Amino acid sequence: MRGMTEAQTATGTSPAASRLLEPTYEGDFVLDHDLLLDSGQCLTTPTLHYAVYGRLNAARDNAVLVCHALTGSALVGSWWPEIFGPGAVLSLEHDFVICINLLGSCYGSTGPGSVNPATGKIYGPEFPLVSIRDNVRAQAQLLDSLGIRRLRLVLGGSIGGMQALEWAIHDPQRVQRSVIIGVAPLSAMGLALNHLQRQAIQNDPDWAGGNYLPQRPPRLGLSLARQIGMLSYKSAPLFEERFARKPNRNGEDPWEPNDHRGALIGGRFDIAGYLDHQGQRFIDRFDANSYLAILRSMDTWDPMRGKDSPEEAFGRIRAQLSFVGISSDWLFTAESVRDFAAIIRSAGVKADYREMNSAHGHDAFLAEQVELVRLLQ
Amino acid sequence: MRGMTEAQTATGTSPAASRLLEPTYEGDFVLDHDLLLDSGQCLTTPTLHYAVYGRLNAARDNAVLVCHALTGSALVGSWWPEIFGPGAVLSLEHDFVICINLLGSCYGSTGPGSVNPATGKIYGPEFPLVSIRDNVRAQAQLLDSLGIRRLRLVLGGSIGGMQALEWAIHDPQRVQRSVIIGVAPLSAMGLALNHLQRQAIQNDPDWAGGNYLPQRPPRLGLSLARQIGMLSYKSAPLFEERFARKPNRNGEDPWEPNDHRGALIGGRFDIAGYLDHQGQRFIDRFDANSYLAILRSMDTWDPMRGKDSPEEAFGRIRAQLSFVGISSDWLFTAESVRDFAAIIRSAGVKADYREMNSAHGHDAFLAEQVELVRLLQ
Repeated sequence: MRGMTEAQTATGTSPAASRLLEPTYEGDFVLDHDLLLDSGQCLTTPTLHYAVYGRLNAARDNAVLVCHALTGSALVGSWWPEIFGPGAVLSLEHDFVICINLLGSCYGSTGPGSVNPATGKIYGPEFPLVSIRDNVRAQAQLLDSLGIRRLRLVLGGSIGGMQALEWAIHDPQRVQRSVIIGVAPLSAMGLALNHLQRQAIQNDPDWAGGNYLPQRPPRLGLSLARQIGMLSYKSAPLFEERFARKPNRNGEDPWEPNDHRGALIGGRFDIAGYLDHQGQRFIDRFDANSYLAILRSMDTWDPMRGKDSPEEAFGRIRAQLSFVGISSDWLFTAESVRDFAAIIRSAGVKADYREMNSAHGHDAFLAEQVELVRLLQ
Repeated sequence: MRGMTEAQTATGTSPAASRLLEPTYEGDFVLDHDLLLDSGQCLTTPTLHYAVYGRLNAARDNAVLVCHALTGSALVGSWWPEIFGPGAVLSLEHDFVICINLLGSCYGSTGPGSVNPATGKIYGPEFPLVSIRDNVRAQAQLLDSLGIRRLRLVLGGSIGGMQALEWAIHDPQRVQRSVIIGVAPLSAMGLALNHLQRQAIQNDPDWAGGNYLPQRPPRLGLSLARQIGMLSYKSAPLFEERFARKPNRNGEDPWEPNDHRGALIGGRFDIAGYLDHQGQRFIDRFDANSYLAILRSMDTWDPMRGKDSPEEAFGRIRAQLSFVGISSDWLFTAESVRDFAAIIRSAGVKADYREMNSAHGHDAFLAEQVELVRLLQ
């Protein structure tokens, strides 16, 4: 199931398109030294799992970095295929596209499910806080090893957008352009939604303080966390159009006087059946500790933290930035993305703002890729 | 803790105001026969717990019925005190105000915590589905017993508004005016939020299929359900204004590398501390099975279900209806309330629409009572 994302679990992407986009190479890069983290802790010689598409040219100046979101993977060709369409944002003929799995994830890079070389045991809940900037620092070493000194473009949505901006701040000489989609530092509502998702996992009878058995993970809790997340990735109008007040399509009756689960529950509405299905699909492909680890990377990202001014936070940026807000996004509202772009512009940085008009909510950058491509052209 | 509501747990109401509004009478009414439910099941001689304020006049034509929301009680003077203010909506001098606890609740009326006379055991998860209309039918018998043939006004917000409308449909000769605040049949997003809350409770290690021990209720799950609910009662702008990205006021550090709960969790932000506090307060005052029972009453309410036209659903209404939408409400959007009023108006019913301009979200009818009073005058 590796490589599936919100777009696929929620809306499906074309299997034909996915099949066409096999990576040129997929493998691991192991840092030759420990990664000192923003938190002051260390990650011992971490591994970055990555995939590349296309070929690096002789001048090594055709590299593009794509950054994935919360539950994505390095296989960008599988979860963002339309970005590679004819005349779209990326070209397999001209670009060398790299995508690197986030630290903390369960798709190949070092995460809570990895063995800590310092102890010989799995990190589990002891996995340290890895910031977005820590990820960028580690990714830079992978690019160094590939001899890539110039990135024509860095782009990503959601947590991917956090990385795309952090790249422009951290490594201004390397980045020519960053496209930052559907993201700003998480709002109070966003922090609240993540707080609920954490509790959903921790309340699971099988949670065991994060030291759950591999064969007995906190499935109910992770499913509920995913369902809370799905609410925030989608929009009320989309739910209304698709589900309204229809009973679940499998024939359950919300008005039944009693059922096997007890009268206090009753048959489900269609939206409930949909959410349960999303939760079920998710627990087969993702790890609860990884989910918590990346939520924390997301929560704590705030490039203005500890800075006295936008100039101090963003003044180093040399790249041309493009921000994309999504009209129906309520996790990262279009307004918050636009305001964030304006703050960065006030530091003298070139930062434009564009808006996707979509009913798909936050998920639109994955669910409506053709529209996104149109907007970025 | 009886009588506390969203307004109090979320925003606090004046203790001084609460003390002034003691009910004239608070007691139980036991139906002298079984209540046949819409579901086809029966509730054996149920009890309605109710409170009255003011005095019934000799003509018995000064009665007002106030209907409470999900976790409210019959003590309307405690949770809606400003409605009784000088020159406000209700007058203790001129009105006889009645408020009746919902069936299924844990504040005195028959609910899952009551003994089923038919079995001698507590209903628990076997408590039947009680519709909003079932509640109205039972309440009508209480009013009959008090000799009240005329209601000058029926009013309520949220589930209280569902009852206020159902009263106008069910008993058109008795109701002169209904005020229906912040409500329409639940949308797909609303059904989704309730589905998440149910799972939060059912996933609790102490849930025991609803047969939890009284001394060991599913506290974590009920707390999480309440927190999910709080998100939907409030608004993102309000959270942003109050909490933004501030660390929890007790000094926790969201950026700490490690804490006693493990590095994957970390210190809380202020919004998380607030939500936890709301959850903690709630589990001391409410029962999980009652919560599930009333969620189901809420989910299944749809006066248009099984009707061929607005005329068939609403044509019997003789009361003047006033609908109130709340600008920042995303559980029952102002647009959905306005559209619902228009559908009812299309059946030839007198139904006006007003809108509260408030950042408080769904909770505004409890949190900004003075503004509500102004709108209703």
